[in-house]
Amino acid sequence: MNPEIAAIAHAARQASRALLQCSGAARDAALLAIAEQLDHHADRVLAANALDLARSAAAGQSTALQDRLRLTPERLVALAASVREVARLPDPLGPVPWPSQRDDGLQIGRLRVPLGVIAMIYEARPNVTVDAAALCLKSGNASILRGGSEAIESNRALAELIHTALIKSQLPAAAVTLLPSTDRADLLDLLKCDGAIDLVIPRGGEGLIRFVAEHSRIPVIRHYKGVCHLYVERSADFALAIRLLIDGKTSRPAVCNALETLLVDAAIAPEFLPQMAAAMRARGVRLRACADSRLLIADADAELATDADWDAEYLDLILAVKVVADMDAALAHIAQHGSLHTEVIATEDPQQAERFLRQVDASAVMWNASSRFNDGGELGLGAEIGISTCKIHAYGPMGVESLTTLKWLLRGHGQTRHPV
Amino acid sequence: MNPEIAAIAHAARQASRALLQCSGAARDAALLAIAEQLDHHADRVLAANALDLARSAAAGQSTALQDRLRLTPERLVALAASVREVARLPDPLGPVPWPSQRDDGLQIGRLRVPLGVIAMIYEARPNVTVDAAALCLKSGNASILRGGSEAIESNRALAELIHTALIKSQLPAAAVTLLPSTDRADLLDLLKCDGAIDLVIPRGGEGLIRFVAEHSRIPVIRHYKGVCHLYVERSADFALAIRLLIDGKTSRPAVCNALETLLVDAAIAPEFLPQMAAAMRARGVRLRACADSRLLIADADAELATDADWDAEYLDLILAVKVVADMDAALAHIAQHGSLHTEVIATEDPQQAERFLRQVDASAVMWNASSRFNDGGELGLGAEIGISTCKIHAYGPMGVESLTTLKWLLRGHGQTRHPV
Repeated sequence: MNPEIAAIAHAARQASRALLQCSGAARDAALLAIAEQLDHHADRVLAANALDLARSAAAGQSTALQDRLRLTPERLVALAASVREVARLPDPLGPVPWPSQRDDGLQIGRLRVPLGVIAMIYEARPNVTVDAAALCLKSGNASILRGGSEAIESNRALAELIHTALIKSQLPAAAVTLLPSTDRADLLDLLKCDGAIDLVIPRGGEGLIRFVAEHSRIPVIRHYKGVCHLYVERSADFALAIRLLIDGKTSRPAVCNALETLLVDAAIAPEFLPQMAAAMRARGVRLRACADSRLLIADADAELATDADWDAEYLDLILAVKVVADMDAALAHIAQHGSLHTEVIATEDPQQAERFLRQVDASAVMWNASSRFNDGGELGLGAEIGISTCKIHAYGPMGVESLTTLKWLLRGHGQTRHPV
Repeated sequence: MNPEIAAIAHAARQASRALLQCSGAARDAALLAIAEQLDHHADRVLAANALDLARSAAAGQSTALQDRLRLTPERLVALAASVREVARLPDPLGPVPWPSQRDDGLQIGRLRVPLGVIAMIYEARPNVTVDAAALCLKSGNASILRGGSEAIESNRALAELIHTALIKSQLPAAAVTLLPSTDRADLLDLLKCDGAIDLVIPRGGEGLIRFVAEHSRIPVIRHYKGVCHLYVERSADFALAIRLLIDGKTSRPAVCNALETLLVDAAIAPEFLPQMAAAMRARGVRLRACADSRLLIADADAELATDADWDAEYLDLILAVKVVADMDAALAHIAQHGSLHTEVIATEDPQQAERFLRQVDASAVMWNASSRFNDGGELGLGAEIGISTCKIHAYGPMGVESLTTLKWLLRGHGQTRHPV
């Protein structure tokens, strides 16, 4: 164990105890101070970011990665605005009513409290440094941030601004700590600090998430991928279904709530598939179609799907298409290939819709609505720190409340469980 | 991977899907059928239990273990009664209001749903087989039960009764499965079934829990131990504090919410410690006292504590005793040695009490009330499937709601996130 990592984890634990004594107003003031630092020192951050971008370009990294890495004056303004928005959210901490009454006068209460120390493990996006620190601070948690090596200069500059803001706000500097190195050995050491860290949230590609989940002794909130389906049931309104498909597939293909697979009821496939194929062709979406559906689509529009397509998260303008016999077959396909993320049905039959809503296991199930609505902001949770596709602790988008837990407070006057 | 284990996990996953279509009434009817089987076939269970007891005696196992293993006609009546009590609990599943409204008419709802498949790993107590199966069934979860080898005959007899009840109730038999073997290799295989099992709950000694947590790819709810403190603050009512101590230490020393360590404010130690020592002596409690407190207690009553005593979960009539300078020192001691389980303050000063309640990190914090109240039944949760000392998913006693999660249901009429 690198003693520096142990020391960072220990200092974060100490800071988390100090945060318990801070009011919501004090935490919000620190958030506003962070936003102010971002406003005033954008130049420093952009200079650091330029170093990261130059290194990335020299290493020949993809333009997609360089885009995730890039900060601009506009992006920094948006980042400061998002921190101010977090400050405006209601304080998630405090007493929560508990209806249970006891005859012996013992008062039972519940208090919403921070989890303690949260480690965020992420990749190239430097904005996560600020977003994660802000959401943890809002919920009274200390955070340990471990970004990708591509963004190290940007992250250091951002962490320095956050520290200045914390100190100006008289909060402990160790309330937010950027891991100084991006060594994998240090990450492994961090994941062993189960006495000091309460939760690990990895954000990034499936490889990173599996690595963290496999090596962590600390509970991990996992989100592997989003293989989201649209099932067009036989009673569906075709125009509506195609609107959902266009929004779900093309409005932002690289995000996890984008659609990847279209399931079409065999009863309507001959009529629906050509319309769908035309709409997709017009938007540059390539199709990977099952043999049955390929017969109904002009050959040039569709490649023959292989088994791998049913589990693929393309994150691109590619759509897998499959004809299914009926609702049972659609449910079975989703049970086998779904990722517990977002599933959609287009149907005008309320009974079929309710059956789908109830039976499909996913963090969000939509009837006649786009998969893209599975998002903390859209659902009214405020900013989101991640999205969970495991059902433990959180399922779906995680807002600040997901970074808290409830403890029991009992107030008595000498009550004992057995007569003394 | 033993193919039998994979098949069991797969069948449980299938059964969990079928359970989604069962009403609360159907699940409750199955619970009542289980209770009826226990009533009618107590003889079979007792005969199987006699085999386990004979084997345990022949192996020279401790009387404490044999007591945990033992079933009697009275214990079976109590077990059936507890299943009927679970049946009477309100259905934890169903719609949960979500206040967020949207201007576009998209309806956002939340549905409380089962986790899916829960694996319970436990030791000698055969009653856990029935309790765990009942709580999982109540909450719509399939369960895989892996008891200790000591109780294998009893567990098989109980599992057979449960199966009969499930079949009579037209529920899938795989909704409850006892692992046929108690091989460690099979347990390791089970802990790898992260595609089919949603949660693992180990119940038993710290060794078992650490083993499961270390080897599981599935999320684990951990409860290592309860090192519970009573802090007697300077303004405490001595008689009240001693009542809490007697109840906490002696009413059931072997349980996790029993007291293990007494912290005494230095300002009152000279007066309080002799009274406390007399009360403990009268109840056969041995003391392990710090050097300061030992000076204030007649030597014969107290052994000198070593560092190990501050982390010890005695589960026996032994109490560690330490004088602390003040509240800060008490908080620091608990932060270092507490187990996030239950902590108690005796004080007549509301400000000190509220500081302790807020600052101490534990699933339950008591002011002038016994540690023994940290129990699902006492807090109004109904039956409890375990107690969590990690803050993820559940903190403290876990009732049936802890075996559920919330999924989002969105009902629209073609809404898209971006204009199409």
